[in-house]
Amino acid sequence: MLVAMPTDPRLSRRAPAGAAVLREDVTDAIRSAVFEELAAVGFARMSIEGIARRAGVGKTAVYRRWKSKLALVLDLVSAVAAQGLPVPATGSLHGDVRALLEVASHALRHPLASRVIPDLLVEAARHPEISEAIKTALLDGRQGIAAVVVREAVARGELPEGSDPDRALDLIAGPLYWRLVVVRGDLPAGYLDDLAAVAVDAMRGGRAG
Amino acid sequence: MLVAMPTDPRLSRRAPAGAAVLREDVTDAIRSAVFEELAAVGFARMSIEGIARRAGVGKTAVYRRWKSKLALVLDLVSAVAAQGLPVPATGSLHGDVRALLEVASHALRHPLASRVIPDLLVEAARHPEISEAIKTALLDGRQGIAAVVVREAVARGELPEGSDPDRALDLIAGPLYWRLVVVRGDLPAGYLDDLAAVAVDAMRGGRAG
Repeated sequence: MLVAMPTDPRLSRRAPAGAAVLREDVTDAIRSAVFEELAAVGFARMSIEGIARRAGVGKTAVYRRWKSKLALVLDLVSAVAAQGLPVPATGSLHGDVRALLEVASHALRHPLASRVIPDLLVEAARHPEISEAIKTALLDGRQGIAAVVVREAVARGELPEGSDPDRALDLIAGPLYWRLVVVRGDLPAGYLDDLAAVAVDAMRGGRAG
Repeated sequence: MLVAMPTDPRLSRRAPAGAAVLREDVTDAIRSAVFEELAAVGFARMSIEGIARRAGVGKTAVYRRWKSKLALVLDLVSAVAAQGLPVPATGSLHGDVRALLEVASHALRHPLASRVIPDLLVEAARHPEISEAIKTALLDGRQGIAAVVVREAVARGELPEGSDPDRALDLIAGPLYWRLVVVRGDLPAGYLDDLAAVAVDAMRGGRAG
């Protein structure tokens, strides 16, 4: 159902750029609104109407750009993935792992991201398209980063050849995700240092049987 | 909205037990249906109507027992928590950790539980009542188990006094949850043995700095 164009004052600040042109500030406002709606109500309850209201635009403005809320979310995941996470290059495995934990802990404690990430991971089990988009994001993004960190540590002789980046990511991201997202606990002083030391030790194969 | 009593053949097998009595087989059927509905559509999309349909009963039968879908879910979480998980008592820290990983990996790979658990954890961020019920379940259940395992390892002299059961649980459950639920990866041969060794080593404080 299409509605009249919005009368939001933000949208009349500039002269219209022509009927065929999609205004980028409107696109950005809708993208932000999607992120906020996902955090507030989750994918299942999210509606194009709610997104439009939050963005201060009409539903037409949304439907001109994306055909459904699924398309909107896939676009959002791809945008985040394309932006990428910075690959740490501290010159040591411990330094790189510690840097990764710092970045990840910020993302997982971000008031919106901390709700959006687990929500989309749950929806991924029900929507193969979301699952694919997240897998791509992880492979190009975080998982790709773990692969780079492991590869460089192998090149420096800090890790044995054939070290498994998936196992590395489990050990780096797993305990942090469990504590921050699953248990919703706090992060005591020194916790990331401790976790970095444990993960590096485990990656080096230093096991007590 | 109340509807007529169900005509499902399962429900006419026995003579009615009297108007004031809630039949336990119906209660059980509804509980199973809640679990299946949660797995199929998630808490946000779940309806009393869908639960009743899946259980083969009328909505009246549901509303006689629980006033809302939130009440139904809280009851389900409490029931699981009360049932409890078996506390391993293998006589060694490594054995206990390995046994915990075995139980947890079965639960997280269970076709229904693997969808219901992360879904409820996400809803917990939006519903304080669900959050409380899960916290209680974790404290009485899995987290309680970690506390018992750590306490007994301390008593045997396998772990230093003051070992932190929360940190232990992060190291035991975190990598497994990340791999099975977040990344939805498989469990290679030897993975649980590897993870048990890593967790025990980290719990003993065996860190390479």
